Amino acid sequence: MKLKIAVLPGDGIGPEITQQSVKVLKAVADRFDHHFQFEDALVGAAAIDLLDNPLPEATLELCKKSDAVLFGAIGHPKYDNNPDAKVRPEQGLLQLRKGLGLFANIRPVKAYDKLIEQSPLKADRIAGADMVIYRELTGGIYFGDKFTAEDGQSATDVCTYSVEEISRVAHLAFKAAEKRSKKLTLVDKANVLETSRLWRKTVTAIGKEYPEVELDFLFVDNAAMQMILNPTQFDVILTENMFGDILSDEASVIGGSIGLLASASVGKESAMFEPIHGSYPQATGKGIANPVASILSSAMLLEHFGLIEEAEAVKKAVELSIKLNVCTIDINKDNHYTTEKVGDFLEGLIS
Amino acid sequence: MKLKIAVLPGDGIGPEITQQSVKVLKAVADRFDHHFQFEDALVGAAAIDLLDNPLPEATLELCKKSDAVLFGAIGHPKYDNNPDAKVRPEQGLLQLRKGLGLFANIRPVKAYDKLIEQSPLKADRIAGADMVIYRELTGGIYFGDKFTAEDGQSATDVCTYSVEEISRVAHLAFKAAEKRSKKLTLVDKANVLETSRLWRKTVTAIGKEYPEVELDFLFVDNAAMQMILNPTQFDVILTENMFGDILSDEASVIGGSIGLLASASVGKESAMFEPIHGSYPQATGKGIANPVASILSSAMLLEHFGLIEEAEAVKKAVELSIKLNVCTIDINKDNHYTTEKVGDFLEGLIS
Ligand SMILES: CC(C)[C@H](C(=O)O)[C@@H](O)C(=O)O
Ligand SMILES: CC(C)[C@H](C(=O)O)[C@@H](O)C(=O)O
Repeated sequence: MKLKIAVLPGDGIGPEITQQSVKVLKAVADRFDHHFQFEDALVGAAAIDLLDNPLPEATLELCKKSDAVLFGAIGHPKYDNNPDAKVRPEQGLLQLRKGLGLFANIRPVKAYDKLIEQSPLKADRIAGADMVIYRELTGGIYFGDKFTAEDGQSATDVCTYSVEEISRVAHLAFKAAEKRSKKLTLVDKANVLETSRLWRKTVTAIGKEYPEVELDFLFVDNAAMQMILNPTQFDVILTENMFGDILSDEASVIGGSIGLLASASVGKESAMFEPIHGSYPQATGKGIANPVASILSSAMLLEHFGLIEEAEAVKKAVELSIKLNVCTIDINKDNHYTTEKVGDFLEGLIS
Repeated sequence: MKLKIAVLPGDGIGPEITQQSVKVLKAVADRFDHHFQFEDALVGAAAIDLLDNPLPEATLELCKKSDAVLFGAIGHPKYDNNPDAKVRPEQGLLQLRKGLGLFANIRPVKAYDKLIEQSPLKADRIAGADMVIYRELTGGIYFGDKFTAEDGQSATDVCTYSVEEISRVAHLAFKAAEKRSKKLTLVDKANVLETSRLWRKTVTAIGKEYPEVELDFLFVDNAAMQMILNPTQFDVILTENMFGDILSDEASVIGGSIGLLASASVGKESAMFEPIHGSYPQATGKGIANPVASILSSAMLLEHFGLIEEAEAVKKAVELSIKLNVCTIDINKDNHYTTEKVGDFLEGLIS
C-alpha cells in the first residue's frame, strides 16, 4: 500500500516522540512491503515562532493532500498565562481539526496487566478495564462564538450542537459498540443543558438502528465518579467535545501512564493520529518522554487503512517492551530507557 | 442563638437523610442551649407532583425569610430520559440557587484515615488529602440562554461570566486559602475558552491582594487527571460552575464514599447546606442511605453562624461513628446500620 503521511511534530516533546513513530512506521513499511512517504510541516508554537501563525496555510494544504496526519503535541507555557495573547498554539490544533473535518476523536483506554501496579487505582478496580471513548471533536463550546464585551467586564462562549453533528459521531460509536461488547454509554448533562437534551434525543433515536447495542446514559458529574469507582462497566463512551476532553484525560489514569494513550481523529476525508498527552514542556529534549502513545497512534493509523496485521505487529511489540520493562521513566522508575532507545527497541522488534 | 431553618427534603433519599440532620441539630440546640426552629417546604419532583412547579413561590419565600436552608436531594429518573419534559426537578434547585443568590458552593474533600481502605485509590496516593473546592454556582453555562432552533435541528447553551461574578467567589476562595495551606489552584480551560481567559485574568489580579497565597493554574482536563494521580497537591481549588460540578463529584472518590461529602452554598444574604450526593432513587425508603453527608452539611451550617464548638461536636461524633463502624452499607458492608440508626447514634453522642 502507498500512503502519504504528513508529520506535524509540533511543540515540546512532540518532535522527539514523533520521530520514534516514524521510525516504527518505516520498519513496518519495510517488513510488509508498503510504501510510506513522510513529509514534515510546522504547527503550534513552533509555527508561531517562525511564521506568526499556529497553522500555516502550507501545513493545512499538506494535510489535505495526504492520506493521514501524524501529530505530535501542541502548547507552550509562554502562552498559557497570557490571557491577552492574540495567537496561541492550540488554535493550530483546533483549526486543523476543523479544517480537516475531524469530527470524531477515538481514545481507547485499557488496563495493561503488567502496569496495574503503577496505576493510582487499586488493581481489583481496574483489572479488565477496556473501553473506548468517542469524543465529538469539531463542535460544541470549542467552536462556538466567543467574545469579550467591549468594556472588558464579561466574556462569552457559545455551545451549539446540530442533529447532524451529533449523528455522524454517534453512528461511528454505535458501529464500534457492535464490534465490541455491545454497550454504549452517552455522557451528557441533560438535566441542565439544552444541547445535552438534543444529544440524548438524537442518540436515542439512532440507537433504534442498532438494536443489539445496549444504550445507557450518565450525567457527566456521575460519569467522572464512575470512571474511577467502576471503570470496567464501560465499553463505548460517547460524548460531546468538552466533556470528552475532561473524561478522556481522567480515564488515562487507568492505564498506569498517560504516556501510553493513543488517539485517532477521523472525518469523512481525513484522519489524524496523535497521543492524548500534551507537549510536556518540562521534559523537552531530555529523552525521558514516552514515545509509546505516539507509536500506538501509528498503530491506529495502520488499522484505519485496514492494515490489521501490521497494526498487530506494532501493538505486540509495545506489549513485549512493557513486559520486558524496556520503558521510559514514567513506567520504569529504576532502570529506564531513553525515548530514543525505546523507539530503537520497537523498531528492532518489528524489522 | 435563635435560628430559623427551612428544611427542603426534596426527592428520593432526601427526606430520610434530612430527617437525621434535623434530629442532630435538635440535639445540638438542646445541649448548647440554642433555639432552632424548623419549617418544611416542597421542592423538586415532590413539588412537581403536587403543584406542577419544582420551586413553589411559598418555598422560595420561606427560604428567603429563614436564616439557613437545609436541603436534601433532587431528581427523579422519570424526568431524566424525557428530553421533552417541560418541567424538571433540577430546575427547582437551580432556581433556588439563583433566587437566593448562592454564588459560591463550598465542598471540602478529605481522606478519612479509617476509610482509606475503602477508596478505589491506593492509600499512599490519598493519605493526607485535604482540599476544599470553591465552585461558582449561579453563573456560566448553567444559567446562560438556552434554546432549540425552531426546526428542532440544533440546540444552544450560552456560557457567560462577568468580572463581578468571578470576583466575589474568588475573594471567598482566597480568604479560605489564607486560613488553610495558602495555596489556590484555578481550574479553567484558558487555552480554548474566552470565559476561562477572563477567569484567569481576573483571578490573577485579585491574587495581588492576597500576597501570602500561592496561586497556580491547571487546565480542567489536566486537573481531572491530577485529582487522581496526586490529590494531596491541592489545597483550595477555585473553578467555574460546570467544571466544579464535574471535579467535585470526581473528588468524592477520595473520601471513600460520596455519602460523606457535605457542601455549603453561600450568598450575600442566604446560605444553604446540602450533601453533594443526589437523590439516589434506587435506595429510597430502604434505610440504606448514608445520612452523614447531610449531617456534615449541618455542621457547616453551624460553622457558618460561628457556632464552632457545636460544629466540632457534630464532626467529632461523625468521626467516632466511623471509627466504631456504626455506618450504613456504603461503608460497613458486613454489619451495617440503617439510615435511622446512624442518625440515632449520632444524636445520642451529641445529647
Ligand atoms: C490542547 C487542547 C486544545 C486539546 C483539547 O482541549 O482538545 C487537548 O487537551 C486535547 O484533548 O487534544
Ligand atoms: C442536580 C444538578 C442540577 C446539580 C448540578 O449540576 O449543579 C448537582 O449535580 C450538583 O452538583 O449539585
